[in-house]
Amino acid sequence: MSGTIDFYFDFSSSYSYIGQHRLRGLAEKYGLRIRWKPIALGAIFKAMNHAPPTGDSVKGKYIWHDVERSAEQCNLPYHWPDPFPFNSITAARIFWCLADEDRQQAVDWALAVFHASYGEGRDCSNSDVLQGLAEKCGFDGQALLAASKEDAIKKKLQQVTAEATERGVFGAPTFFVGDEMYWGADRFEQIERSLSLG
Amino acid sequence: MSGTIDFYFDFSSSYSYIGQHRLRGLAEKYGLRIRWKPIALGAIFKAMNHAPPTGDSVKGKYIWHDVERSAEQCNLPYHWPDPFPFNSITAARIFWCLADEDRQQAVDWALAVFHASYGEGRDCSNSDVLQGLAEKCGFDGQALLAASKEDAIKKKLQQVTAEATERGVFGAPTFFVGDEMYWGADRFEQIERSLSLG
Repeated sequence: MSGTIDFYFDFSSSYSYIGQHRLRGLAEKYGLRIRWKPIALGAIFKAMNHAPPTGDSVKGKYIWHDVERSAEQCNLPYHWPDPFPFNSITAARIFWCLADEDRQQAVDWALAVFHASYGEGRDCSNSDVLQGLAEKCGFDGQALLAASKEDAIKKKLQQVTAEATERGVFGAPTFFVGDEMYWGADRFEQIERSLSLG
Repeated sequence: MSGTIDFYFDFSSSYSYIGQHRLRGLAEKYGLRIRWKPIALGAIFKAMNHAPPTGDSVKGKYIWHDVERSAEQCNLPYHWPDPFPFNSITAARIFWCLADEDRQQAVDWALAVFHASYGEGRDCSNSDVLQGLAEKCGFDGQALLAASKEDAIKKKLQQVTAEATERGVFGAPTFFVGDEMYWGADRFEQIERSLSLG
C-alpha cells in the first residue's frame, strides 16, 4: 500500500498544520492517496501522562520559534491561534460527521479548519467560528454542530484515537506508509526516500 | 558569523552521532568552521527534571527505530553501544584536555569516540576502551585518563555545559548559526537554507 499515506493529526497541533501542507505537496508529486485521520491527541497525552511543553518553558520557546521558522520555510502563512493550544474536539467530530457522507467534504473541512486556525489565527474551539466556517464550505453549520454531539460521532473519534494508539502513535502529526511510522513534520525526506525506493 | 557553526553534543546521544556526520558534510560543502562542544547533557536533563524516553516505552521504541532509519539514510554504519545510554563524562573530559593543546586532535578524538560507540557499538564509558582509542589516535592514553580527572578539566566541561544552558540548549545535538538555534539531527534543510540566504 505504498500509494496510500495514513495521516493522524490533531487540529490543535501546529506541526500538524505544517505537516498537512507538506504532505499534500508530496501526495501531488507521487499521486498518493491521503487518509486523513483527526484524533483526540489530548486523550493520548493523558494516557501517557505527558504534558507538551508550554510556550514559557525553554523547550517550548524553541519549539514555538521552530514552528514559525518551519512555516516560513514552506512559504506557509502562520499565525498562532488564540488561545493556543485550543480544544479541537468539536472540529474533529465535525470532520467525522462529514466523512461518513462524503470523504472530499471532510477533507475540505480539514483544510478550512487548518487555514482558519493557523493561516488566520482564529479560535476554532469556538462554535460560532466553526459554524461560520462550515457555512463558508457550503455545509449546514447548525446541523453539523448538532450532529457532532451525537454518541456515534463521539465514539468514532474515540475509535480512531484508539486505532492510532494501537499503531504506536504518541504525537502528531504521524504518518504511516504501510506499517512504517513517521512522527513529525520533518520526516518528509525519509518518507520520500521510502516512496522512491518503492 | 555565518561561516561558523557551534555544535553542542553529548557522546551518549545517538542523534548527535548522526548530526556530526551530516554537519561535516554541510561544513565541507559550504566551507564552514565547526566549533565542537561536548557537554554533560545529563546535567541539563537533571536540571530540567527531564528523563529521556527509554527503549521500552512507546516513544522510545519509535525513536530507536528512527535513529537506525536515519543512520541508514545517511549510509552511516550504526550499532547501538552496549550499554546505552552510557556515561560519556570521561570521553567528554578527554576532549577538553586535548582541545586545550590542539583543536584538531580534539576533533580527531570526537570522531574516534563517535565511530567506536555507534559505528562499532563499543562501550565508551569504559576506561580501557578509551585508553585504547586514545592510543590508536596517537595520544598518550594513560596520561589523558589522568588529566581528565583534574579539577580544571572537570570545571571546563561544567563551564561549556553552563554556556549551552545559557544559550537555551535543552537537548542534543544543538547547532547555532550565529544566534539562531537548531535542535536535532533533522534541521539541516533549514540550516542549509539559512546559509544559502547568507
